[in-house]
Amino acid sequence: MAQYKAPLRDMQFVLHDMLNIENHYASIPAFADTNRELVDSVLEAGAQFCENELSPINRSGDEEGCQFDDGVVTTPKGFKEAYKKYVELGFGSLSAPVEHGGQGLPPSLGTVMSEMMGTANWSWGMYPGLSHGAINTVEAHGDAQQKEVYLTKLISGEWTGTMCLTESHAGSDLGLIRTKAEPNADGSYKISGTKIFISAGEHDMADNIVHIVLARLPDAPKGTKGISLFIVPKFMPTGERNGVKCGSIEHKMGIKASATCVINFDEATGFLIGAPNKGLNCMFTFMNVARIGTAVQGVAAAEGSFQGALEYARDRTAMRSLTGPKNPDKEADVIIVHPAVRQLLLTQKAFAEGGRALVYLLSTYTDIVATTQDAEAKKAADDMMSFLTPIAKAFLTEVGYEAANHGVQVFGGHGFIREWGMEQIVRDTRIALLYEGTTQIQALDLLGRKVLQTQGGMLRNFTKVVHKFCQTHEGNADMAQFVAPLAALNKEWGDVTMRIGMKAMGNADEAGAAAVDYMMYSGYVTLAYLWAWMAQVAQAKLAVGEGDAEFYKAKIQTAQFYFKKILPRTKGHIEMIDGGAETLMQMTADAFAF
Amino acid sequence: MAQYKAPLRDMQFVLHDMLNIENHYASIPAFADTNRELVDSVLEAGAQFCENELSPINRSGDEEGCQFDDGVVTTPKGFKEAYKKYVELGFGSLSAPVEHGGQGLPPSLGTVMSEMMGTANWSWGMYPGLSHGAINTVEAHGDAQQKEVYLTKLISGEWTGTMCLTESHAGSDLGLIRTKAEPNADGSYKISGTKIFISAGEHDMADNIVHIVLARLPDAPKGTKGISLFIVPKFMPTGERNGVKCGSIEHKMGIKASATCVINFDEATGFLIGAPNKGLNCMFTFMNVARIGTAVQGVAAAEGSFQGALEYARDRTAMRSLTGPKNPDKEADVIIVHPAVRQLLLTQKAFAEGGRALVYLLSTYTDIVATTQDAEAKKAADDMMSFLTPIAKAFLTEVGYEAANHGVQVFGGHGFIREWGMEQIVRDTRIALLYEGTTQIQALDLLGRKVLQTQGGMLRNFTKVVHKFCQTHEGNADMAQFVAPLAALNKEWGDVTMRIGMKAMGNADEAGAAAVDYMMYSGYVTLAYLWAWMAQVAQAKLAVGEGDAEFYKAKIQTAQFYFKKILPRTKGHIEMIDGGAETLMQMTADAFAF
Repeated sequence: MAQYKAPLRDMQFVLHDMLNIENHYASIPAFADTNRELVDSVLEAGAQFCENELSPINRSGDEEGCQFDDGVVTTPKGFKEAYKKYVELGFGSLSAPVEHGGQGLPPSLGTVMSEMMGTANWSWGMYPGLSHGAINTVEAHGDAQQKEVYLTKLISGEWTGTMCLTESHAGSDLGLIRTKAEPNADGSYKISGTKIFISAGEHDMADNIVHIVLARLPDAPKGTKGISLFIVPKFMPTGERNGVKCGSIEHKMGIKASATCVINFDEATGFLIGAPNKGLNCMFTFMNVARIGTAVQGVAAAEGSFQGALEYARDRTAMRSLTGPKNPDKEADVIIVHPAVRQLLLTQKAFAEGGRALVYLLSTYTDIVATTQDAEAKKAADDMMSFLTPIAKAFLTEVGYEAANHGVQVFGGHGFIREWGMEQIVRDTRIALLYEGTTQIQALDLLGRKVLQTQGGMLRNFTKVVHKFCQTHEGNADMAQFVAPLAALNKEWGDVTMRIGMKAMGNADEAGAAAVDYMMYSGYVTLAYLWAWMAQVAQAKLAVGEGDAEFYKAKIQTAQFYFKKILPRTKGHIEMIDGGAETLMQMTADAFAF
Repeated sequence: MAQYKAPLRDMQFVLHDMLNIENHYASIPAFADTNRELVDSVLEAGAQFCENELSPINRSGDEEGCQFDDGVVTTPKGFKEAYKKYVELGFGSLSAPVEHGGQGLPPSLGTVMSEMMGTANWSWGMYPGLSHGAINTVEAHGDAQQKEVYLTKLISGEWTGTMCLTESHAGSDLGLIRTKAEPNADGSYKISGTKIFISAGEHDMADNIVHIVLARLPDAPKGTKGISLFIVPKFMPTGERNGVKCGSIEHKMGIKASATCVINFDEATGFLIGAPNKGLNCMFTFMNVARIGTAVQGVAAAEGSFQGALEYARDRTAMRSLTGPKNPDKEADVIIVHPAVRQLLLTQKAFAEGGRALVYLLSTYTDIVATTQDAEAKKAADDMMSFLTPIAKAFLTEVGYEAANHGVQVFGGHGFIREWGMEQIVRDTRIALLYEGTTQIQALDLLGRKVLQTQGGMLRNFTKVVHKFCQTHEGNADMAQFVAPLAALNKEWGDVTMRIGMKAMGNADEAGAAAVDYMMYSGYVTLAYLWAWMAQVAQAKLAVGEGDAEFYKAKIQTAQFYFKKILPRTKGHIEMIDGGAETLMQMTADAFAF
């Protein structure tokens, strides 16, 4: 199987050449010290750790899986040791607040780190990933004592965290959850109920596990407005065992080394975080972070499968190029000469690099939202993040999954064999389209909540930026190939939104019927903007003769590929959006099958 | 996990209402006795066998997999017993020639049967499927004695067969194979070499295994023109063991209950079939059959995942319909009320039923090719089959895989859990895009060999049929919604082919660069024709008040869905085809990654 190699050159292109990350950090007082050298040294240390510690236990972890025995979960060989190293090297506390033992680096650097960890070994990355979610939640909503007791241990990595939301009958619809929280005399609560799909819910990597649990108080209103949030540790800070037990682990398609647990709470002691009945509001912070984290899985899938497929395509020989032998001394040409193989590889590359740009851009907004005191700047960043997050989550996981499948395809029949590792990426990635809100839920969030409910306001925030980019570069002859189609799409985006909005006023199902195609359309246009931007940066670098010309040329060529061979997919989505709801809704549930 | 239920009503719709299969059989002397009653009784017996014997061991077979121990392969629990029953019930000999013990029924009935077996348990179906390939090959190219010795035993099911083509360095490019055949004094050959990816290469279901092996004679020319075909039995007809041994079995993403073997031939005794160095020509018969058989896997994936997802969507509750509660007495609505869920389900349904129509139509050509003495009729059917086969193989497996993924998606996070069986369909189906020629190879076969090399002749054969359909029904007001877009696409199909042909004359890579999008485009248009045809049949039935009106209404509604919400994908493919080869070919192999 291909060994992961962190694409440092490309990461640096996005961070430095494109996003000018040093300036971005300099503009935020809390991160003013994060200069280019520091960024690069974190990248390099992260790359070493991921390449040397995580990548080698990725396939063995998949084969071995997690073992369950009477409430105890054993992670695959090497997982515990890698976690210990991760903690020792300080990666867990990278972007955590200094006042609780963190290093206070920007969240965006944590995102870059999570891409490397995730590409090297997604299952392993789930454990610290969930801790990260718990850290954010306690930091944002916990009181001083909760922070003192739990946050410091989570940040130090001595303890890990989970997010306990889902119940067997309540996934997308959290308003249905039934887990109960009954007040104790001492101000704590007795938590009872069963949660499912709890990643990192039980394992052998740390001394204690801090569960963040959604539950209902006795007098809670029905639905989403009656949900409260609790801290429920596996072991009480005093050391005794709490009434929390892992009932079983799931047998899954992929991420087999990540323990997905049924967690039973049997009058477990819990502590309310935030206000009663406001639990779901408290979760929104976490959910945005988790969605960006899942968007990273799409990038990881594209990058990892691209690396494997590229190596194979440069080495495997089959048939001759249609334009005549390219390796006449061999009995056949390497398969990278074939246009259809290149189409697969370039699609992977365009999604990996384009997705990376989107996720990193998005993470710069999280830097601002997390730290700024300026309400206007915060709202601007938050709006942009709110708009781009469902696109990044749904679109990047859909195309990341596509890219992972292309990786298998480049290998031919060998791609189906576990040994090569390509099919594992497909299996591991499939969950990304489901958890943290399915593609369909994200699409409704984008079109319904973010676009239509703001009367298009959040969309215009973004299309204005795109419009400005097009205006700035429309006079550049080399950029016309990108600017002209991008400007047209940017306008069409607004137009189609209007059309959906009009129809949805008469029939709400018109929004639901358009949502997924609208989300995919939005994703392709967003990536078109980023590819145009990257091409412009590369052209500027070439013009002044800075850096590696071959790298920048390839960047422009990939942008050209994206515009010619990917972006036309928007044509189909527009027509399907305009196809409306009728053909979806007219069939009775009984008539679907006879 | 959802129990498979054969969609007999829909199968009968395609066979009787649409294809008028009784008339088709009546027109072929060999099949004149195959009337509607016989067809229906075979369908019902097949459905019973598949539902009661194969479906129940589908998931257990996946969990258990095949076991390998020193050359011996053990299939999962129940596989052997099901095979015994299959043989006893006569399903193995259904469409085999009467003179060697078969029942002489039409090949198209065998295709229908293979759809049911494959949907119920694809892994299991691989064993008789490979026998079927061996039967066809020996029947077409074996001499009288070979037929006497091997064919009768293969048809009776006492022995099974394999097709040994692939070697580790030679998959798509069979011209590279190295397995040797050295003549013995008695007219037999010593076969030496190693074959990989041999399905049913070793197992415990039958007494003997007849390998059909591609190998090179000592004086053979290089490449594809130096390949000969041999029968190499595991046990000689006299009973002694031949020099054939299974070296290992592959660990795969899916179809885990199908033994995928490395087969070592160590001076094994083999018998030449057909003329020396004409082995690949002899294989073409088999390959067409195998490709249609793989197209069936796409239909099976769509049908099986649709059945599972539909059951779940009618039962699982989450959130309220956007247009207000539909099940006010429950705490949430069943998810089939949501447009985005319906979009997934209807996509599965449109591909399952449309794919079924394509495969059954295709199989009527195989009936003719297999039996007719009329050279002109044979050529016409053969040409149609040659044109539609790569479309059916590549397009139906691509969209079948998409549909299988939609099945997972409808289940949300539960879709990722093995217990539900949805993810197994994804894993089992992934191979269909790879074996028997990848999607990319099929696309080149379609555009290069079938379309451009015939100067568009094979395409015109088909577009003429579509054109005639459009002309016949253009006056029908109810059909305008289908006929108008279909006629436009049918014309565009010819136009885009011309454009590709012109460009490819200057640069062969232009064909390679267009091939996959062209194949997908062709698939969508072909299915549009079939959906229009099915809608027309349903409208005619409704007009005369025959049969179940609800069934025919749903058929028309599905056609409407297909035209509005699937067919627009052609728009993207056209533009990507016209996007040309340049952006695929300009990047140097070195510049793909830095």
